[in-house]
Amino acid sequence: MRIRLDIAYDGTHFRGWARQPGLRTVQETLEAAIGRVLGGETRLVVAGRTDAGVHATGQVAHVDLDDAQRARLLAGRSRGTAGEAADPVAALAARLTGVVGAYSDVVVTRSAAAAPGFDARFSAVWRRYEYRIADSVAGYDPLERHRTTSVRARLDAATMDAAARSLIGLHDFAAYCKPREEATTIRTLLEFDWHRDAHGVLVANVKADAFCHSMVRALVGACVAVGEGRLDLEDIVEIRDARERVPEVKVLAARGLTLTEVGYPADDLLDQRAEQTRARRALP
Amino acid sequence: MRIRLDIAYDGTHFRGWARQPGLRTVQETLEAAIGRVLGGETRLVVAGRTDAGVHATGQVAHVDLDDAQRARLLAGRSRGTAGEAADPVAALAARLTGVVGAYSDVVVTRSAAAAPGFDARFSAVWRRYEYRIADSVAGYDPLERHRTTSVRARLDAATMDAAARSLIGLHDFAAYCKPREEATTIRTLLEFDWHRDAHGVLVANVKADAFCHSMVRALVGACVAVGEGRLDLEDIVEIRDARERVPEVKVLAARGLTLTEVGYPADDLLDQRAEQTRARRALP
Repeated sequence: MRIRLDIAYDGTHFRGWARQPGLRTVQETLEAAIGRVLGGETRLVVAGRTDAGVHATGQVAHVDLDDAQRARLLAGRSRGTAGEAADPVAALAARLTGVVGAYSDVVVTRSAAAAPGFDARFSAVWRRYEYRIADSVAGYDPLERHRTTSVRARLDAATMDAAARSLIGLHDFAAYCKPREEATTIRTLLEFDWHRDAHGVLVANVKADAFCHSMVRALVGACVAVGEGRLDLEDIVEIRDARERVPEVKVLAARGLTLTEVGYPADDLLDQRAEQTRARRALP
Repeated sequence: MRIRLDIAYDGTHFRGWARQPGLRTVQETLEAAIGRVLGGETRLVVAGRTDAGVHATGQVAHVDLDDAQRARLLAGRSRGTAGEAADPVAALAARLTGVVGAYSDVVVTRSAAAAPGFDARFSAVWRRYEYRIADSVAGYDPLERHRTTSVRARLDAATMDAAARSLIGLHDFAAYCKPREEATTIRTLLEFDWHRDAHGVLVANVKADAFCHSMVRALVGACVAVGEGRLDLEDIVEIRDARERVPEVKVLAARGLTLTEVGYPADDLLDQRAEQTRARRALP
């Protein structure tokens, strides 16, 4: 029995998503919570393996329950919020929140039976991230400081937006990734744009089929270099096409980055999608 | 020379606005920062003396500088954000932020010369607060946990909104205040309503000429009692008009409360307003 979990976390005090011996991670915290509620051992599979300090409001994972866990799930009543759904699968989210606490830095916001063929990682069609930068004291909101990077230079939002849009498409993003052995750096960047919110904070919207390591933070770093006037608009496409990392492009701090949404195909297309994802990406 | 300061803070780790011996307060933290930048002793006068744990995005204070401080202010250059205004008064906000740190839990977002007759406390025409409640796990956002109260019961937002609106007007709010010797509890509640935001979080908008002690937290507590079905809609007006505190109305937690805005009259009406405020409020 496979369960889909929607998850939100403040990454500040986590060493990222993925289990690491002796370190506090989101995966380890949630697997322990599931163990407390349903017993046994579980292993979460996640859509986006976020780095240390990165946040999520729309993370998605799945977990496969064994028969004993399934029996406990169906027998259990919500010990969480009164008035939550009577469906025991839907009530799991509130039970897990009861274990970690309503004011915890990680919360399961929704639990549901996964559709046949659903895989949180391999079914995902796209991931969306947000990156927030305050570039004036007027935008320094202490209540948002956990998820906002502040910079001293005043940035040119219009130029940064143009720079972002110029990078969109199917490309080799090796210049904007930390390389990993044997892993392709070819990705389809679907959306990339900047705007200022009502408080003047610069917000990047970044959406791709998938991201390689540090890719969002390098892409926003490239735009900041343009916004500060250290790089020209054309430079960042040239850097991309040279496929080599350059020192002008800084990987920005994790604190500004939040995984906000993961896209999946309609239920009847799930199997097909997982096959496509497992095939290696290539440029045409 | 009088300076107006606009201030934002995460109240979680402060014992409120007002100085208290040996405790960390917003007033003490900012007065110390001003001392480090301009020397001397200063005393801030504030629009809303928030309690321990209460936040602000739109707090307003003023400070009167002596001649030595004024000379230091005008001589100083911004050591803060590059590209901030060259005006030394406007640059004070960035200099103070340089002292407390860009990721501090308190920030001065704006500094400006006060108009003649301006008094942060006595010129204020109204104060606006926001109160946030998550009543389902779907609304538990760890990135917003510092400023959101969570409750276990699912609340009826439409009834709470009706309850809130029924309290608006010039009334004696003794039933919804912690009494203080010799202080009137007559206030004009100008706006009070509830809505759910995009994430399903219940948000109260509360605006009054001024608030007595614990008034916002008691008013939202009364609405929650209605939203849970513990009180009827008519009860809360009856409670108000009986002018006696009742145990059914809980004073909700500080963490959900944020001072968002303070209203002032146009500059040429400032003197007149301060006089009106100093006169004792009375029911007609």
